[in-house]
Amino acid sequence: MNHQQTAETFQVWLKDQIPLISHMGIGEPVYDGRSLTLRAALAPNVNDKGTGFGGSLATLATLCGWAIVTLYLREQGRDCDVMIRDSQLKYLAPVTGDFTAVTVLPEQAELDLFMSYLEAKGRGRLNLNVEIRQGDTVAMTLAGAYVAVERLS
Amino acid sequence: MNHQQTAETFQVWLKDQIPLISHMGIGEPVYDGRSLTLRAALAPNVNDKGTGFGGSLATLATLCGWAIVTLYLREQGRDCDVMIRDSQLKYLAPVTGDFTAVTVLPEQAELDLFMSYLEAKGRGRLNLNVEIRQGDTVAMTLAGAYVAVERLS
Repeated sequence: MNHQQTAETFQVWLKDQIPLISHMGIGEPVYDGRSLTLRAALAPNVNDKGTGFGGSLATLATLCGWAIVTLYLREQGRDCDVMIRDSQLKYLAPVTGDFTAVTVLPEQAELDLFMSYLEAKGRGRLNLNVEIRQGDTVAMTLAGAYVAVERLS
Repeated sequence: MNHQQTAETFQVWLKDQIPLISHMGIGEPVYDGRSLTLRAALAPNVNDKGTGFGGSLATLATLCGWAIVTLYLREQGRDCDVMIRDSQLKYLAPVTGDFTAVTVLPEQAELDLFMSYLEAKGRGRLNLNVEIRQGDTVAMTLAGAYVAVERLS
């Protein structure tokens, strides 16, 4: 499978596993092996002011970081549980239309270090930055640490 | 209206305004004028591991802080938009059953300062701590800054 097919298969599985994200109007993920974009419609994610609900933005950004780590590990043939450990969120601008979460994997050296920890200790930690964007505007940033733990099978 | 009645009226309004929270199995809020508790069922909020989805925990905690500021301002007779500005989340333990978000308003001196800014500048900022708990276990903490802006009517 190419990266994009992996992501589409992943999304079908995901919607079955995490019921909340079925209510967020999330479109097809776009993944090229380095970056992941998740798109969401505004309507199911509005707040009392008619703009993007902070909880929805936080959820899409958290999910986007988690998903790219999970996709990367699957492509490396690793069977891991991935969890968010901590995150710092900054809300910069209101969202007034459909929006995307975008993240990019870290440099290869950092990925290699992550994989070597996973190999040696059965767990590793990866720091990621995720942006919520509406067009060219960055509406929120998430800086998060994700932990992967090798699944015992 | 007493505090609890205010909170119940508020929740009816809220579910109408923010569609996503209708999908989270949120129960009646408990509010006594100082602290607010929001309860959520695990089932609509699970992840691929069968535990609480990070996005759901982030959403309930973000909502809880936002709601207590909004409730407090309504009781003070102020018509404001309340928004989250930034937050720091720490995921401490997996959630394996129904869970609550709990927050307490700051000391009176801090509330007075907040209200005096609102009076003088039409906007104020309040820092809050919110915990996600399952029974006695704190599963996540959120430290957030919320901004209130007087609505022009």
